[in-house]
Amino acid sequence: MTTLHRTVPADLLALDARDPLAHKRAEFALPQGIVYLDGNSLGALPAHVPARLAHVTQQEWGTQLIRSWTGGADEGRDWMQLPDRVAARIARLIGAQPHEVAVGDSTSVNLFKLLSAALPLRPDRRVILTDAGNFPTDLYVAQGLNALQDGRYELRRVPTAELEAALSDEVAVLLLTEVDYRSGARHDLRAMTAAAHAHGILTVWDLAHSAGAFEVELDAAGADFALGCGYKFLNGGPGAPSFLYVAERHLDSVQVFLSGWMGHADPFEMARDYAPAPGARRFVVGTPGILNLSALDAALEVFDDVDMRQVRAKSLALGRTFTEQMQPLTARFPLELVTPLDEDRRGSQVAYRHPQASDVMRRLIAAGVIGDFRTPDILRFGLTPLYLSHADVWQAVQMIGRVLEEGL
Amino acid sequence: MTTLHRTVPADLLALDARDPLAHKRAEFALPQGIVYLDGNSLGALPAHVPARLAHVTQQEWGTQLIRSWTGGADEGRDWMQLPDRVAARIARLIGAQPHEVAVGDSTSVNLFKLLSAALPLRPDRRVILTDAGNFPTDLYVAQGLNALQDGRYELRRVPTAELEAALSDEVAVLLLTEVDYRSGARHDLRAMTAAAHAHGILTVWDLAHSAGAFEVELDAAGADFALGCGYKFLNGGPGAPSFLYVAERHLDSVQVFLSGWMGHADPFEMARDYAPAPGARRFVVGTPGILNLSALDAALEVFDDVDMRQVRAKSLALGRTFTEQMQPLTARFPLELVTPLDEDRRGSQVAYRHPQASDVMRRLIAAGVIGDFRTPDILRFGLTPLYLSHADVWQAVQMIGRVLEEGL
Repeated sequence: MTTLHRTVPADLLALDARDPLAHKRAEFALPQGIVYLDGNSLGALPAHVPARLAHVTQQEWGTQLIRSWTGGADEGRDWMQLPDRVAARIARLIGAQPHEVAVGDSTSVNLFKLLSAALPLRPDRRVILTDAGNFPTDLYVAQGLNALQDGRYELRRVPTAELEAALSDEVAVLLLTEVDYRSGARHDLRAMTAAAHAHGILTVWDLAHSAGAFEVELDAAGADFALGCGYKFLNGGPGAPSFLYVAERHLDSVQVFLSGWMGHADPFEMARDYAPAPGARRFVVGTPGILNLSALDAALEVFDDVDMRQVRAKSLALGRTFTEQMQPLTARFPLELVTPLDEDRRGSQVAYRHPQASDVMRRLIAAGVIGDFRTPDILRFGLTPLYLSHADVWQAVQMIGRVLEEGL
Repeated sequence: MTTLHRTVPADLLALDARDPLAHKRAEFALPQGIVYLDGNSLGALPAHVPARLAHVTQQEWGTQLIRSWTGGADEGRDWMQLPDRVAARIARLIGAQPHEVAVGDSTSVNLFKLLSAALPLRPDRRVILTDAGNFPTDLYVAQGLNALQDGRYELRRVPTAELEAALSDEVAVLLLTEVDYRSGARHDLRAMTAAAHAHGILTVWDLAHSAGAFEVELDAAGADFALGCGYKFLNGGPGAPSFLYVAERHLDSVQVFLSGWMGHADPFEMARDYAPAPGARRFVVGTPGILNLSALDAALEVFDDVDMRQVRAKSLALGRTFTEQMQPLTARFPLELVTPLDEDRRGSQVAYRHPQASDVMRRLIAAGVIGDFRTPDILRFGLTPLYLSHADVWQAVQMIGRVLEEGL
């Protein structure tokens, strides 16, 4: 990043000096000279992951070969149970029991599994209700599933503000992403789940921008189904396996329609007919991608000594610093904050509208401040408390100011 | 492997000396002291893969971070197009055009995509015909898809010998694995496709034990749909992404029901409605697992200078050596060869029935000869011409003899 000849304000340095998570930054291999505000798109590399991957590749694959599938099971080193071990790590971060979580496949594929499993639990209802601004792939998956079932469902997309009014006994499933990928606005997962349940509606929560960003309490909130992303705030690497959650009370009644041998009750029996494994493991389908899964497993170790309440507190503090430092710029330039200032209603990112957002972000990235442009006009800045400081945020805002001042 | 004090017969050493693929073994990082006859379950590690993975992890993920998704596109280094580049490599090995191939997800998930895409092309037919001995996950996937569509289809499982007689105008799709995972028997893909077409039946070929093992000529055979495995003969690593094939003539008429943003015509447009990308790319669903995909990409470089006809010739020669060397043992022990001796009817493995197959294999593996047990009584030995010699096969047979002689 181009050197800036102003110095970080003392109050921000003081915040960093008191930061109980400051030591976590050393656990990440961040490049010099950039401020990385895109950990909500691709989390940074935990420094110990390359060694784990080298071991998996050279020892487990290269030397142990096929024996790694079942060898070392007693010590928790076999590949067969690796999805379950990663599920247990994630369960702790989302307020779930390990047998309610399955890990593998992409978020899109996992949504397909969950939607197809949830809808038959409300056989007389035909509406899938969602936020009009939901992440597109969630809508595409619902469209594809519906087409496969002869269009029997209606995908009803309503603006966020009208969601509660749209809850009714026509609705089978409420499909929401807890934190909006553009604005960073956060639904009240617990209240919305309760409101849905009051109409007999099942909830499917996409936690792509939640897991690893703040405390998630699925069991306590009475959530039905959820899924999320391994490569954003969980830092599992590009295309890391996704996770899904099925509340214990649904586990015995849901059917798996993407049924593969790795979710079979006895995979090596090679039985003619499918019989689901106990718990959420039945939602593991084909052979898991062990390299990506091992990277995610290692990456999750970063959270072992982390209190998610501290993560949330720091995320909010970083957000305050960001929006406060941006205030003078919003007065001078056509910037519109689209992230709610209300702390209960925001996730772990800050976003602004700007008419030339694409160009602004291109220049910011060239100058070493890496955020994201989201169509049509959103500048998005992810706040990852494990490896960002208030000084980083200040630096980034200085550079945003310089880019805007220099014109486009 | 325990040292054996007999020496390899001169005729086998002569075969190895004349082997045009002998130099390929040095491209694999095989451990000392074992004979690896399980490359049809998990291919061995190509020696250059760890360096590629280290680069992907430390440079592309760690340093370039989110920029790797689109950066370097002009030089073919961006992650967005990585699935297409891997597809092009595989296309060459299966006799397809690059735009007919998509890479990603597991074999199970890919079969779901293909079956769901194929069946609507024969809307008046209700039978999915398959081999009773097909790999279980293929059956489970068909069962799951059928359940999702209210059981409108019949999964008709008939013995191999009755397949041709079972072709009729009731059948929508013929779903076959070209090489049986237990016996190693090989269907005649071209003849069976033609026979199916004569009844208006579409074919879905599982090439799990074909791709990388011998020449596959999908376009020339007039195949409709196919899929296969990245981690067997293609050596892409544990849980490597799978590939699928859709014949060009079907590409415009098939619908994608597992529709995700990575198969969208314009992923970053974030459009509200799904619109498929051109060609087979539409079958890429969610964000691809870049670590596994990069390992597969690197592993496929091994094939760059390989003539698949030489691979096939050596595979058949290794099979001859194996069965000939085993002959004296089949006379003394309860071993039954279940792989056809007819070279047109075998894949790249040799399998024997033995009443204590599980125990025999356990002891063989302990002694350094790694094959596979397949329920209920199959000893399976994969023949991978790129890293096996006739001397290896001879060593393995010596050890099989010793294990059988010592009793169980």
